[in-house]
Parts: sequence; structure tokens; C-alpha cells
Amino acid sequence: MNVAIVGATGYGGIQAVNLLKKNKNYKISFLGGNKTSGSKWNDNFPFIYLEDDPYIEEISIAKISNKADIALLCLPNGISSTLTRKLLDRGVKVIDLSADYRYKSLDKWKKIYSKEAAIYKRNDDDLCKEAVYGLPEINKEAISKARLIACPGCYPTSALIPLAPLLSQGIIENDGIVIDSKSGTSGGGREPNQKLLLSECGEGLSAYGLINHRHTSEIEQIASSISGNSIELLFTPHLIPISRGMHSTIYGRLRDPGLTSDDCRILLDNFYRNFNNIKVLPVDIYPSTKWVKNTNQIIISVKVDSRNGRIIILSVIDNLLKGQTGQAIQNLNIMSGFSIDDGLELTNNFP
Amino acid sequence: MNVAIVGATGYGGIQAVNLLKKNKNYKISFLGGNKTSGSKWNDNFPFIYLEDDPYIEEISIAKISNKADIALLCLPNGISSTLTRKLLDRGVKVIDLSADYRYKSLDKWKKIYSKEAAIYKRNDDDLCKEAVYGLPEINKEAISKARLIACPGCYPTSALIPLAPLLSQGIIENDGIVIDSKSGTSGGGREPNQKLLLSECGEGLSAYGLINHRHTSEIEQIASSISGNSIELLFTPHLIPISRGMHSTIYGRLRDPGLTSDDCRILLDNFYRNFNNIKVLPVDIYPSTKWVKNTNQIIISVKVDSRNGRIIILSVIDNLLKGQTGQAIQNLNIMSGFSIDDGLELTNNFP
Amino acid sequence: MNVAIVGATGYGGIQAVNLLKKNKNYKISFLGGNKTSGSKWNDNFPFIYLEDDPYIEEISIAKISNKADIALLCLPNGISSTLTRKLLDRGVKVIDLSADYRYKSLDKWKKIYSKEAAIYKRNDDDLCKEAVYGLPEINKEAISKARLIACPGCYPTSALIPLAPLLSQGIIENDGIVIDSKSGTSGGGREPNQKLLLSECGEGLSAYGLINHRHTSEIEQIASSISGNSIELLFTPHLIPISRGMHSTIYGRLRDPGLTSDDCRILLDNFYRNFNNIKVLPVDIYPSTKWVKNTNQIIISVKVDSRNGRIIILSVIDNLLKGQTGQAIQNLNIMSGFSIDDGLELTNNFP
Amino acid sequence: MNVAIVGATGYGGIQAVNLLKKNKNYKISFLGGNKTSGSKWNDNFPFIYLEDDPYIEEISIAKISNKADIALLCLPNGISSTLTRKLLDRGVKVIDLSADYRYKSLDKWKKIYSKEAAIYKRNDDDLCKEAVYGLPEINKEAISKARLIACPGCYPTSALIPLAPLLSQGIIENDGIVIDSKSGTSGGGREPNQKLLLSECGEGLSAYGLINHRHTSEIEQIASSISGNSIELLFTPHLIPISRGMHSTIYGRLRDPGLTSDDCRILLDNFYRNFNNIKVLPVDIYPSTKWVKNTNQIIISVKVDSRNGRIIILSVIDNLLKGQTGQAIQNLNIMSGFSIDDGLELTNNFP
Repeated sequence: MNVAIVGATGYGGIQAVNLLKKNKNYKISFLGGNKTSGSKWNDNFPFIYLEDDPYIEEISIAKISNKADIALLCLPNGISSTLTRKLLDRGVKVIDLSADYRYKSLDKWKKIYSKEAAIYKRNDDDLCKEAVYGLPEINKEAISKARLIACPGCYPTSALIPLAPLLSQGIIENDGIVIDSKSGTSGGGREPNQKLLLSECGEGLSAYGLINHRHTSEIEQIASSISGNSIELLFTPHLIPISRGMHSTIYGRLRDPGLTSDDCRILLDNFYRNFNNIKVLPVDIYPSTKWVKNTNQIIISVKVDSRNGRIIILSVIDNLLKGQTGQAIQNLNIMSGFSIDDGLELTNNFP
Repeated sequence: MNVAIVGATGYGGIQAVNLLKKNKNYKISFLGGNKTSGSKWNDNFPFIYLEDDPYIEEISIAKISNKADIALLCLPNGISSTLTRKLLDRGVKVIDLSADYRYKSLDKWKKIYSKEAAIYKRNDDDLCKEAVYGLPEINKEAISKARLIACPGCYPTSALIPLAPLLSQGIIENDGIVIDSKSGTSGGGREPNQKLLLSECGEGLSAYGLINHRHTSEIEQIASSISGNSIELLFTPHLIPISRGMHSTIYGRLRDPGLTSDDCRILLDNFYRNFNNIKVLPVDIYPSTKWVKNTNQIIISVKVDSRNGRIIILSVIDNLLKGQTGQAIQNLNIMSGFSIDDGLELTNNFP
Repeated sequence: MNVAIVGATGYGGIQAVNLLKKNKNYKISFLGGNKTSGSKWNDNFPFIYLEDDPYIEEISIAKISNKADIALLCLPNGISSTLTRKLLDRGVKVIDLSADYRYKSLDKWKKIYSKEAAIYKRNDDDLCKEAVYGLPEINKEAISKARLIACPGCYPTSALIPLAPLLSQGIIENDGIVIDSKSGTSGGGREPNQKLLLSECGEGLSAYGLINHRHTSEIEQIASSISGNSIELLFTPHLIPISRGMHSTIYGRLRDPGLTSDDCRILLDNFYRNFNNIKVLPVDIYPSTKWVKNTNQIIISVKVDSRNGRIIILSVIDNLLKGQTGQAIQNLNIMSGFSIDDGLELTNNFP
Repeated sequence: MNVAIVGATGYGGIQAVNLLKKNKNYKISFLGGNKTSGSKWNDNFPFIYLEDDPYIEEISIAKISNKADIALLCLPNGISSTLTRKLLDRGVKVIDLSADYRYKSLDKWKKIYSKEAAIYKRNDDDLCKEAVYGLPEINKEAISKARLIACPGCYPTSALIPLAPLLSQGIIENDGIVIDSKSGTSGGGREPNQKLLLSECGEGLSAYGLINHRHTSEIEQIASSISGNSIELLFTPHLIPISRGMHSTIYGRLRDPGLTSDDCRILLDNFYRNFNNIKVLPVDIYPSTKWVKNTNQIIISVKVDSRNGRIIILSVIDNLLKGQTGQAIQNLNIMSGFSIDDGLELTNNFP
């Protein structure tokens, strides 16, 4: 399989290069990046050495479709939509890491991503409907048949994987769910940004996007679809002074307040028993984001307040792997007929 | 006023020295610390220079009561209880920074602090009842008359100050409150501890003490007392890789879902209008812990989900100042008849 | 004294506001910043509250000279030179925190700051000659009479204060001096910059500007002037993942290899005995940058290799205070006839 | 090959487990650790999952020699010497990661490690003489025949690899070498230690062990042996607030001041042309410790001050891999007849 990495010099692209360069199933056949186009990879990234030292190329439909069977679009929101239909028309499958195809309705996207919608005049509601939400542990079957994947980002992944078993089986109330998430700064990307300077965000923690963060609606859409009911929830992202890592603390109410922590642990464990990258910890063991850094794992822990049937679920992921490019490779594997975790047997290397 | 700092070489003691050494209202008349007793202060802390370079002395009731009018006990849980009655009997007022007198009932303390209770055989339920919970913005009147203060720590302070106006005025439901707190590592103290090594907790975030953390019961006790009803809530502490700073994200449900974010902001602002160290931000401005570092301030922001009447309140404090020793100095000021903020006009010095 | 802070929203300006807002000797009469001009200070900096909440104004010679007796120019290199003569002509004294007047020769500046020289066509060699290098512990007399100060930055300060006594008294060889400096990221300023993102520079350390860093020539100029001989040295800056703080490790060779560590300690201590902000530690005690954070102090330690007469001197400063704005306030105090440390009695607040 | 990891729960042991668990050449046949003996591995390290979940066993000569062909001793200084002869006598080869066999003379060790020498009464000068200093890029031949390896730690490795080509070919003067090294905190180990608490060393940098650090003598011994002359140098370690990573900045004087930066770059590059884990950067590109994190690489950059023939060499390593256990695996590979880098093709995963 020949794979194009489009947007190769951001964090998504860099991870994709790192994950694919030693992977025997795939060949990186195109590296696209407009700002650095014409320069050689190893000059840009002496610490991510590629044997053949390819040029980074201008992003061009012709080149991508000549060279690749499938394209990973690691691009800012809005730009993917200018490429996707053309690539699909030329037979190139697309795994889009942006938000462009995460909503089933283009109108919804235009409402939530209004800034981008003002710049990119989209007319591809059919593709929004066609795209498969690329959460592999939930949507494996659909992914295997898809030609367009909307690959979820870190926040929805860290929230939905723990919630899916509980929502689909009606274990928790649909009402009153709280997702308190904490993200490392690499989630904000590589573009220069005052708020993400070490001097500004180091030695500090702050929340942002209360109530109206874009991912609230995305999480609600998928959670509603899983539960079969319309779900409104609270999602609060926080910026923590680490490079990689995401922790979500999820609060809900059990329908049956007699369930114990261990009941819930077993339920989660069973639900994901076929997925090696999901691990549910023994009760009273709580994970650090450090435990999953540099891996594609999600580690979950669950605890019930037996006084009142409240439940807390913790999840940790590496925001750039299971929260981004590792997830894209899982999708790539499923679409290509390989084992879901091929090339993702990564070592955490604590500390 | 002559002040004894008992337990001078931990973070509580160090902050107390820093806060009092330039304060004209008080004289540090005793520095107690058993491990370093007999050594000179400046040899231990060349970077916290004291002109007179006093000796650190062994902790002795006789010495403290000879030299001091009031004692700040910056000691591990349990030890304070061995000193307090003796000091009070000799006319020395006590501000205790440990948890020893935070519960109105000694039995409750013995249950929650069972490890300490096994070591220290206490018999001072009368003092538990007498002690005033030293949250100055709530209990100022009682503090002014007290001879024994149980000074609250960082978690309860960061949770209760935002909650007090909402609970006392019945703005939010008593049921379903969630407090998701994030603390810098200095909250864990200066004693060597593998979990707090930079190598172990740096570049990571983890939760701990789910459901059963000791401060859950303390927050519930005070919240219940403020609201007049028995309150059960969820409190989840997290360790963040910064030295100083605490952020609490508090979730609740409005009784009147028609209230706006601005209504709530005004309510909080009015409630604390006489307290310069409490600042309520305009709606949609969210504080960083960096904004209060090195100060005694608490900054609060509030936001309502108008779809369903949920409310989120954010608070940030410096866990070693408003969350510990700064608060102790407020109590000291009130007990001594000085203005509450005297000597606490601190500069944040961003970044 | 009315003081204009020109460039008020960068780190230099912010520190200046923090240092002057409670200082009774001075009144901040003008806050200049082109990008934010027209907005109110407290809206930009809710965490650095100014009672009168002034507007940030466009930088204008007329306004500055109407409102201020003295101007602190906290501006990028090159821009100061467009304002300075006009301000001086209107009777406003200038403390320039940029490099524009640090060389005695404009030609030298044009050579070293060639990028800026290409943009700003300067013709003020007379001012370069007139300007006093504002290292207060070395140049106090000249500063007191100056109307234009070139205030040194963090690297030269951290290197020159330890070296001055040794060079001026001929204690060390002029040849073979090595200055290995480590700086927190705030030294790189507040402008968005990929290299200073927490994700990029967090959890890492790197050197930059080997041999040719601009400050090499500045340090050499002043060191030569102090020693009376032409000095060539090696200066290597490193970026460390902290916000504030600078550490310089300086290596040299004693002329008299019989001198002990303690001899050198005493010599340094005597040289600076009149300066409270300079502290020389006992031999074998080594300072952390944390010990001076948020203060205007420089702490020095010295050690001799008795086998071969090599000497190592360590110095730590807060790069934004003694390395920038604290130093500017020292100059301001001297020029205004106040005590050199007025308003600079700052507390470190470890940890 | 059956490998015993002795001292499995410290950072050295953890890295060894991570490096060997997927390595087809070796089987981890024994995990030794006295404090945790009797407990299962996965209970101690849920984030470093071992399929067979072995017990951690008490450290016993009998068990190790029954189960293993070779032992990695990841133990504090002094303890290795109590095991080594017994293991060798039973036919178990030893790779010792402590300092016990790094000096050719036991007397020298007793002088430098006097504290340990007071506890462990050693009598194995013959083994000190027999042991091979395990720097694979220098000593490959001897390592291949050895039964006892003294595996060098991070500081000497980061200093000696850049210096070896220059010393062995007489490129730089033997006199006046300065090594200014900066280390992440994991170099200090996993034992609780006040100085390594995040609260204490976070947001700060400090030097330690000036002149007399134990590694000065070790570096001097090997450097002298390489150059053929007795070398005295200055080595200054600094603690930086990161978990993993080491940067050394090395200063020297060229014998032939006409050599350019590029000459020196080529010389280093040629010297190590057969070693894939050593990379020499183009002139004027300077590495970050982040570039080698989680890998066994050493990246070097070199720059000459053409004014005076001074040379600066930078090196970066991961202190726990090339600076510790990765190096041990290189030795293991050479001793076992495998390719030197087998199992060490690690991905950096920036950022």
C-alpha cells in the first residue's frame, strides 16, 4: 500500500512518518507540506531520519493520486474538504484527521466551524453522510468498507471509549454526564501561538472553551448515536503543562445504584476484550498519562460511590497517538485488511 | 505580637517565614523543627535570609509558651493534637494548619484519619468542638474571637469559597455536585516521596483518592453546614506537574435554570465584595493557576449551560498561600485585630 | 517622577508595571504598546490589576514627552533608536532595554545587528558614545549623571558581575575564559515562536548561537574594558525548559594557582560588599536558579581546582529582573537619586 | 540467551525489561529486587505489561546462576561487588551498571567511593583489572571476549564519545578541557530524595559536585588512556528539570588552529562511520536532548572559533538508554555475537 502523508510537518504528519517508516505493510510514497515544499525531509527533521531522504512536495491532487492508494490528511480544519472529493474521485481513499467529516450533516459543521465555513465554501453534504467516524473499537465493520474516514481527535476518543459500553448498555443515565479533560500542549499543534509558549503555559493550568468547545457537540453526536437517545453533556477541556498526554475524568450516575466498582470494571473489560490496546485497571489503581505516552493504548479505571450510585471513569491516552495518528493507523490497517494493531506495538519507556 | 512557627522547615513553615519576616505587625519569636534543631536558619535556607539568623529549636511547649503569643502549627496530621491543649492552657493561641481540628467531632477525625489515630491517642473532643474552621471569608466573626483555629487546606478552600454563595443562597441543587481539582506537587509536602519525584510525576497527570479522599468528608461537612442540608458530593484530586498552583472545576445544577452566567457572576461578586483577595472574572475569561501564583488571591469564573441549567465554576489559588499559609496569616490578622490582608499584598510576577 | 513604559505588553513591560505599580517614588504615567493601543490595561492583564485601569496608548513622542520624565524602552532591537534622540531632545531621559546603545560604536552595532541595521537606518553614533552601560554595580557613578542608559540583558549581566572583580584585579588570565549559560524561555520574549512552544522545548535542552551569539561581542567589549586588555572568550547559551531563571557556569585560569576557593570567595564578597542584591555563597554551596526567582538578586559561588589553578564561578539570576527590568529599576533609582534597591526588596517565595 | 535483570525495579531495571521483552535474542529469565521480592511484575508495573507476569525474586546467587547465562546488575554502587565473583565463578557473565569495576585499580575505587568502601569490604582488585570498560564504540574487541563488563554511565559516555576521536588523534590539547554537562533528574534514580522532588528541582537549574564529582576521575582515567597522556580536566554536572536527557558542552583547544568546524565534523563522522547510533550533525545545527529521547543514539555537533582555535563539541543522549541500559544491551549483543544494535532500533517520537 502506498500512503500519502499530507501535511507532513505538523505533529500529525510527524507521528505518521514515525509510525509508517518501519512498517512493512506500507510505503510512504508522498510527503506533502506547502511551507516546506522543495526541501528535503532530513534537513527539516535531522532527528527523524528517512533512509531515502525524500523531498517534501507541494500538495497536489495529481501527485497524490499518482503516487498513493490512500491519503492521510493531517491538515487544519477546512482544507481537507478542498481535497477529499477529488482524491476519492481518483480512487484514493482518504483518512481525514481534521473535523471536516466528523458531523453527519454539513450544516452542523458550518454552524460549529463557522470561521472555517466562511473561508471554505463547502458543498459536500453527501461526503459528510458517507464518511465513517473512525473510532475503530466501535466502528470496525463500517471502517473496513469505507473509502472516507473522519478520524476522531483526542478529546472525543478519550471520552467516548470509556462511555460507549455504559451508554450502549444503558448502565448510566443519559442526563448529567460530566467530562473533565486535561490535555498536553501538543494538542494545540506546532504553529507558533502565544498561549502555548512554555513561558505562558508552563507551571500553570487553565480551562478553556467552557460549554461551547467544538468537541462538546461532536461527543454529544456520537454519544447520542451510541445510546439511541439525545444526550447533552458538560465537557471542559484544560491545558496542562506537558507535551504529550490526555486524561479524562468522567462523571455519571448509574441507573442501578447497586452496581459495584468491580461490576463496572468487568463490564468495560468484557466490552473491549478483543482489543489489545484497551486496558481496564483493577479497582483503586489509577493511571497516569505517563503510562501510555508513546503508545496507542487507552487505559481506563472505574470507581463507584456506593453511597449514591455515582460513577467516575478515568481514561488516559497519548493525544498524538490513540488521540490522533495511532488511531489513523488503526483505521488504515482495518481498511487495508491488516491486523488492527499492526505496527502499533509501541513501548512506553517509563519514565 | 510574637509568633512561633512550629514545623518551620516544611513548605508551610517556609512560607510563614517569608510572609512574616517583613511584616511589621509580627515578630517571629520561635522557629521549631526537630530534624534541624540546633542549626542556624540561614545555613538551612541561604535563599531565605533572616537578618538575625536564628537557631531552629527543638519543639518544646515551654519554649513556645515563653516566647510566643500565638503559634502556627505547620506539622503533619496528628502531631498538632499533642501540643495544642498545652499551648492553649499556657495562654498561647493556636492556628493549626493540619487536619486535627477540622472536624467538629473527634470520632469523625478518628474514622477518617485512622492511621494517625492509631498513633496519637487523642482525647480532646472539646477542642474539636471549640476550634473555628478558619475560612476567613466565611467565618470572620468567629475567627476574631477564637483561640484555636483549624486552618483549611488547599482543596477545601478552592472548593468551598466558590460554592459557599451558591449553597447558602440555595442557587444550586445540593445533589450531584462534582469537584474536579488539580494540584501542584508542593501540596504533597517536602518529605522525600517516590511519587513526587520529578522523574515520576513530571510530564504526566494522574488522579488519586477517588471517592474516599479525606478531603471529601471535610468539604461535605462544611458545605452541609453552609447549606443547612446534608450534602454528598464527588471530589476528585489530580496531581499536575507544577510546583505551586491549584485549579478546581466545579459542576452543579441550578435550581432556577433561567439564571445566566452573568447573573451568577454578579451574585458571586456581590457575596465577596468586601474581600480584596477574591476576584470574579468577566464571563468567558478563564483563569490560569499562574495568575495567582505567589499571591493570596482566589480568582473565580462562572459559566452556565443555558440548554439545561448546569453551572461550571472555576477557581484558582496558590496552594501554599491561600491554600495554606496565606490563609493562616489572614486568620492571624483577624485574631490580632489587624486588617485581614495586612502583609498579604503580594505580587504575582507573571510569567 | 513620571515614568513611561514603552512596550508595556511584553515581558519587559509587564515586569516594569509590576515593579512600579506599588513603588511610591514613581508614577506610571504612560503605557505604550502599538498592537494593543486603545484597549484598557486590566482587560489585557486581569491578573496584573491596576487601580486606575489606564488605556494602553500608541507609542508617540509627543505623548511620552508630555507625560513622562523618563522612559523605559522595552522594545525590540532597532526600534529604540528611532525614539531615543527625539525623547532626549525633549528632555526625557531614556533607559533602553534593547541592544541599541550597548556598543560604544555604531559601526560595531551595525555589524553585529545587521538584520536590524538593514531596517533601521541609524545615524546616532554620538548617542552610542554617550550612552552609559547600565550595570549598576560597576558603573554607578556614570549612571547617576547619565541621560541615556543602555541596560544590559540577562546573559551579559550573569557573566560580567562574577567576572568583573577577577578581571579588574587581574586574578584570572584574560585568555581561555568559557561562559556556559543556561536560560529560561522567557528570555526569548512573548512573541509567538515555534521553538519556544512548550511542546517543542519542554522536556529538552539545547544550545544555540555557538561562537557567534550576539552577546559574545557585548560581553567581550565590557570584559575588555574592565580588564584593560582585549579579551576573546567562548560564550554558549542554552535553552532550558523553565520560564524564568538563568545560570552561568564560568571557567577560567587563575594567574596565581595558589589561591584557594575561599580566597576567591572573599575577594568577590569584598568587591560587592556595598551591594545587598549580590550574595556570595560559602564554598561548596551551589545555588539554584529557583533561589533568585522573582527577585533582583544575583547569587554567586566559586570553586578552585587546586590541582591546576582552574576556577569555576557560578551565578544565578532571574533573567527578567536582575537580567532585565529589575536592573532597569536600579538604573532608574540611581538616576533619580533614590537608594539603588528601593522597590526591589522582593521575596523569592520558594519553592 | 537467558538474562537475569538484577535490581529490576529501578530505572535501570525497568529500561532493561522494556528493551528485552520484545527482543527475540534474549529471554528474561530472572527478575531480582529485594524490596518487592515475592510480588508479581504486573502488579508493580501495570504499564509495563509482561505476558507471563513473573514474580520478582529475592536476589540470590543460586537462582541467578541456575536461570541465567548473563546478568545485568542494575544495583547501587558497592552491592555489585558482593555478587560478581560468585556469579563469574558459576559461569554467569556479568554486565555491571554500577561504578564498582570502572577503575582499573581497587584502591582508586576505595578512594573515590569511600562511603561505599566503608560498607563493602572488597578484595577483588583482580576483577577490577579484568573488567572491560563497556564503551562499545571504543572497546568493541575487548568487550566481545569479556566475561565482566563495567558499563559506563551517562556523564562519561556523553563526554568520552565526542572526545575519543580528538584525543586519540591528538587533535586537541590535553590541557584545559572543560565538560559542562546537564542531566535530567532520572539520572538520580528512583529512590525518594528531597532534592529530586518536582517541587524542589522543577522550574530550576543548579550545578553540583564541582571539581570533585566522582565522574571527573572516571572520565580522566579513560581520557588519559585514550590519549596516552595524563589528563586533568574540569567536569561540572548540572541538574535540569526534565525526566530523561543529557547534554554535554565540551570545550577544548585545537593543536592546529587552522582546522575548521567542517574539518572536525568530518573527522568525527569518519571515526564513527561504522556506528549507526552515532550521528554527527552538519555544522551550525545543534541538537536538543529531545532528539534522542527514548533512543540509543548519541548526536554530536562541533564548532570552531576560528579566531583562536577553540573548539566546542555538543553531545546529547538519553541518559537511561545510551547513558545506561541501552549501552548495556550493546555490550550484551557484542558478548553474545549479535549485531551491536539488535533490538535498539528505537523511535524517538518527537515531540
